[in-house]
Amino acid sequence: MSKQTLNTDVVIIGAGPVGLFAVFEAGMLKMRAHVIDALDITGGQCAALYPEKPIYDIPGYPSIDALDLVKKLEAQAAPFKPVYHLGERVEKISRIEETRNQEIGSLQFSNSSIPAFEVTTSKGIIIQCKAIIIAAGCGAFGPNRPPLAGIEEYEGKSVFYLVRQREDFRGKSVVIAGGGDSAVDWAISLSELAKKVYVVHRRAKFRCAPESGARLEALAGSGKVELVIPYQLDALKGDKGLLKTVVVKTLDGAVRELPADVLLPFFGLAMELGPIADWGLGISENHITVNPATLATSEPGIFAIGDIATYPGKLKLILCGFSEGAMAAHAIYPLVHPNEALHFEYSTTKGVP
Amino acid sequence: MSKQTLNTDVVIIGAGPVGLFAVFEAGMLKMRAHVIDALDITGGQCAALYPEKPIYDIPGYPSIDALDLVKKLEAQAAPFKPVYHLGERVEKISRIEETRNQEIGSLQFSNSSIPAFEVTTSKGIIIQCKAIIIAAGCGAFGPNRPPLAGIEEYEGKSVFYLVRQREDFRGKSVVIAGGGDSAVDWAISLSELAKKVYVVHRRAKFRCAPESGARLEALAGSGKVELVIPYQLDALKGDKGLLKTVVVKTLDGAVRELPADVLLPFFGLAMELGPIADWGLGISENHITVNPATLATSEPGIFAIGDIATYPGKLKLILCGFSEGAMAAHAIYPLVHPNEALHFEYSTTKGVP
Repeated sequence: MSKQTLNTDVVIIGAGPVGLFAVFEAGMLKMRAHVIDALDITGGQCAALYPEKPIYDIPGYPSIDALDLVKKLEAQAAPFKPVYHLGERVEKISRIEETRNQEIGSLQFSNSSIPAFEVTTSKGIIIQCKAIIIAAGCGAFGPNRPPLAGIEEYEGKSVFYLVRQREDFRGKSVVIAGGGDSAVDWAISLSELAKKVYVVHRRAKFRCAPESGARLEALAGSGKVELVIPYQLDALKGDKGLLKTVVVKTLDGAVRELPADVLLPFFGLAMELGPIADWGLGISENHITVNPATLATSEPGIFAIGDIATYPGKLKLILCGFSEGAMAAHAIYPLVHPNEALHFEYSTTKGVP
Repeated sequence: MSKQTLNTDVVIIGAGPVGLFAVFEAGMLKMRAHVIDALDITGGQCAALYPEKPIYDIPGYPSIDALDLVKKLEAQAAPFKPVYHLGERVEKISRIEETRNQEIGSLQFSNSSIPAFEVTTSKGIIIQCKAIIIAAGCGAFGPNRPPLAGIEEYEGKSVFYLVRQREDFRGKSVVIAGGGDSAVDWAISLSELAKKVYVVHRRAKFRCAPESGARLEALAGSGKVELVIPYQLDALKGDKGLLKTVVVKTLDGAVRELPADVLLPFFGLAMELGPIADWGLGISENHITVNPATLATSEPGIFAIGDIATYPGKLKLILCGFSEGAMAAHAIYPLVHPNEALHFEYSTTKGVP
């Protein structure tokens, strides 16, 4: 036995917006939930990567900042008293075999208190549950780290893979590396308060929305941003994690030294499914294939929703993940309440606790 | 030619929450929309049947009144300048055949200004468009009208099938007929301000949420509501549309006369697909069958979303209709912009106009 064994109806892996809404949907169907997330905060990518950015396509919110959305979703889930396990990863999922045999042996075995899975976290906590919803977004994602000698000692001090608060960069010399949306958007945003913003990119073309590209050009024209093209990161110079210089190089070997307080490498997120990839689930191009009618994976009792799930026509939109959460909860209901027919009710009739 | 011929990219039939959000999703993909609704207000059932009721399962809103939600969705759609045709029904949908032949004849015929359909409204307006989204909820729904002689002359004066504003019933003697959620919920709600509330039902059991049933019992116990059971509506007495008495009867012929200012018959909505049923679409039990990956109906170019659409696992939840609207818009994009690849972007990157 481990340190601690807990019991719930549904374990939700991932505390991003879609995982949080799945707590609510499970709760509306009288199912308790525990939520596990590798990050030490709720909100997933929304909270970690762009907390202050407005989102425009949450239905009913013409605009809402990512972190506000997370707070609202947490409040919506709160009446159902979810238990959060943050800063923990799922290490192991195993079936409680005895239960399974019993269930197979009789028609709809009635003891609904019998769990079907044991989920073990990186802190050694064991959670028994009847169903699992994977809402892990890009997986326990990590940033693509540029291959620079000694970069580890700067990480978290003067090298950051995400911006938590713009204010942290006020008055600083900032080197942004990358050519995608994040690089361009943050260059535009930080140019308003940084002392200097360099954008290092290996080619003149940026992979971003045309309007953003035009704004970056305009800022470069007015000197607010300096485009360092076609350069790539080559080395870091500094002391005890405090950056002084970012060395960049062309393919021809030309070198420039950029005085810098901060380096923001935006080379995207590595899609790391991590342990999920080992669970024997049907996987297609790093996503978990699900039945769109139920969000069921190839493993009975395990469901996947949000960005990590794929099916024909799948859109990686938060609002679609919300719908998937509702559908998964309805599909899970008979696993948790095997002898109760589900009486479909509108929330306006049923209310919340 | 008719009075007026208009042109757009997508005609959306139904201005309920799902139709409104489809305007936004179409707009995010550079597609213009016209919206037609038989009601003279936007919001569909939300606005017509329960404007003041809180909804608890709109993601990101722990609680929002139905009418507030409609207003937010309208504001969210507004930047894309939709054209609303309210108080109009769709009378006819026809294909513009010449266009079709041209498109079939060449690979991706490039003139994207060529429409595919003509939609004719009950006011004789013709709207040309490239795709149609049916978001008609329960169809152009009507209430189930009790078979009482002369009821028409009271309708809209002292017989109402929906409550627009509770305040209209302050100090009135109200007879509510029916045994479902609407009857029970409105009895509870109106008991707070009406002079007297009768609930006429043919049997003792109500078809409602257990909590609501318990509250109704409690109100009956305290005399705030009088349950008239097992009675059914029999006749109306009054003058020039102003009700004085509702006559009710048991199956055994026992009669009671209830003094009444207002009768609210809540016998549900008749699912009237109306003209939709004649359009040759695949129909299953009064719903339009769609491909869940695209929300496409059996007719190319015609899509259905929200409560009127059905597919395996379908839930009639507003939040699922939102997701369907996004998926339908993405599926329609190549019909409107046949030569442009769709560059998937998050709203937070793309912004809104």
